[in-house]
Amino acid sequence: MLTANYVGDRTIRVDEREPQAPKPGEVRIAVAYVGICGTDLHVFHGDMDGRVTKPATIGHEMSGTIAELGPGVEGWAVGDAVTVMPLDWDGICPACMAGNQHICQNLDFIGIDTPGALQESWNVPASTLVRLPAGVSLRDAALVEPVAVAVHDVRRSELTPGDKAVVIGAGPIGVLIATVAAAFGAEVVIAEIDPNRRAAAEELGLRTLDPSAIDQVAWVEEWTGGAGADVVFEVSGSAAAVLGATSLAKVRGTLVVVAIHSQPRPIDLHRLFWRELRILGARVYERRDFERAVELVVQGAIPADHLISQVVPLVDVASAFETLEAGRAMKILVEVAR
Amino acid sequence: MLTANYVGDRTIRVDEREPQAPKPGEVRIAVAYVGICGTDLHVFHGDMDGRVTKPATIGHEMSGTIAELGPGVEGWAVGDAVTVMPLDWDGICPACMAGNQHICQNLDFIGIDTPGALQESWNVPASTLVRLPAGVSLRDAALVEPVAVAVHDVRRSELTPGDKAVVIGAGPIGVLIATVAAAFGAEVVIAEIDPNRRAAAEELGLRTLDPSAIDQVAWVEEWTGGAGADVVFEVSGSAAAVLGATSLAKVRGTLVVVAIHSQPRPIDLHRLFWRELRILGARVYERRDFERAVELVVQGAIPADHLISQVVPLVDVASAFETLEAGRAMKILVEVAR
Repeated sequence: MLTANYVGDRTIRVDEREPQAPKPGEVRIAVAYVGICGTDLHVFHGDMDGRVTKPATIGHEMSGTIAELGPGVEGWAVGDAVTVMPLDWDGICPACMAGNQHICQNLDFIGIDTPGALQESWNVPASTLVRLPAGVSLRDAALVEPVAVAVHDVRRSELTPGDKAVVIGAGPIGVLIATVAAAFGAEVVIAEIDPNRRAAAEELGLRTLDPSAIDQVAWVEEWTGGAGADVVFEVSGSAAAVLGATSLAKVRGTLVVVAIHSQPRPIDLHRLFWRELRILGARVYERRDFERAVELVVQGAIPADHLISQVVPLVDVASAFETLEAGRAMKILVEVAR
Repeated sequence: MLTANYVGDRTIRVDEREPQAPKPGEVRIAVAYVGICGTDLHVFHGDMDGRVTKPATIGHEMSGTIAELGPGVEGWAVGDAVTVMPLDWDGICPACMAGNQHICQNLDFIGIDTPGALQESWNVPASTLVRLPAGVSLRDAALVEPVAVAVHDVRRSELTPGDKAVVIGAGPIGVLIATVAAAFGAEVVIAEIDPNRRAAAEELGLRTLDPSAIDQVAWVEEWTGGAGADVVFEVSGSAAAVLGATSLAKVRGTLVVVAIHSQPRPIDLHRLFWRELRILGARVYERRDFERAVELVVQGAIPADHLISQVVPLVDVASAFETLEAGRAMKILVEVAR
């Protein structure tokens, strides 16, 4: 079988390997599609060399069908369409004991800490499987994982129908958060300085504003009748965006920090205090987020045709990384099945 | 009657004035005791000259008895012991309409934006009155307002019995938060670098640690069985404390920012994201916080004898500011009644 492996030095190499039989409790998945995400790009750039074991088979946004059941696996059959929630928690740390397994203090992320989906046959614990309905588009279903991220972020915000939400940053996750927030009944605007990303978001029917061209605080105040936004999602990773984000929120409003900020960022704590704001960190997802994401994809609430810029065969995986790096694509899928 | 007035240039002047009859809906209070707080010190220092109208009768931590009822006031009688919740909201802004009157977008704080309690006769809207039980110590009851701040902060944290809480900063509010959190059933430690403040907190039976002498992250991890603190209260105002505070909290733990940070502060957003932390701003109080504070004072849960360093007559009010400024007192009360 073919496998795609990060070998260091900004290089993804396609290797031939023998498929392995699934161990007890595992299934072997015939992988159909794998999406490439920002984390995969970080690996490609070498930013995570301290964490991955090279050669590293990466990839964790995927769809496929069960090809073989390991001993003791029940409730699943060969041919079932599935995706994988790529989290492996220890079950015994204080976070797990408190019910927060998804952010276990010793979490292994499958596809980073252990081998991922960029291989024709992928063995995973059956406990990580998420069922896809029969007849689902496996291409679209490769979006379930990033949609689950967005569902988690929106659920974490406790947004309710009719709320007004600002999403800062119109990258793939920003656009998905805006789409999911709208599907949850919110009115949404995306703040984005890049004109191409704004145009892409508008093609999806999303409202945008350009914070470099207008006074976004005044705009949001006008839009919300003087109140401020119920929820602000920070998905840009920009220091300036974080500093300004608190000014967009209403009294007792919520700022959800989704982007990864590797350095401490100045926050307007006076505004936080004055308006009794709430800032929430949001990371990965829980099973119910995956299940809701499957529903949204199946219902067509996620504009898959617009989001998927390109589908490349596994042998061309390196080109996908180059195209993404150049910022010329929203989401690229790798078609793993031949 | 005597009144104490900030006249600018770090000067509090005691003036003789005529008491005024209460207007419709108001009562005239014979003020008994007034506590001096950090905000009053800020006024004294001129930091709030843009906000106060000089000469400014300040003071908002108080106790007294009703001396006269204005037209239309019902439910109160001359002689009733009272304190005042010194908030005047407009009732029509988006925050008020959403039920957050205490942080009204156009809030007047009585004692800063309008005349305060440092006068023998103080006229306030009857709607701001909070009943004190007959026979209460009016001296102790002057602590109700700062205790209400602490109750609000602890309620905002959603702390539950058995939780472990770290309070950063052992000033008057930090000590009250620690005391109230303990009264709500939490185990509490105060982190404080100043040895005198640590000693004062320990005299009150509070556990302390010195973050300049020990590794507080390791200490809290050990104390909490590897989990981290359920709640961290930032009451120090220090940039270093804020930056370190997120490292003390458990997965899904809460950091309540109580101190006023006039400048943006670097926050460890990676930790916020990684542990899905929650940062909450907390400001002033709601009526139920005042009512709970009255109960705590009446029950003796607040160590008033230890907290009240000194009681000075109104004519000596200037000395109270000087003593506080020199850091030589926890809480000074002004005895207004002659």
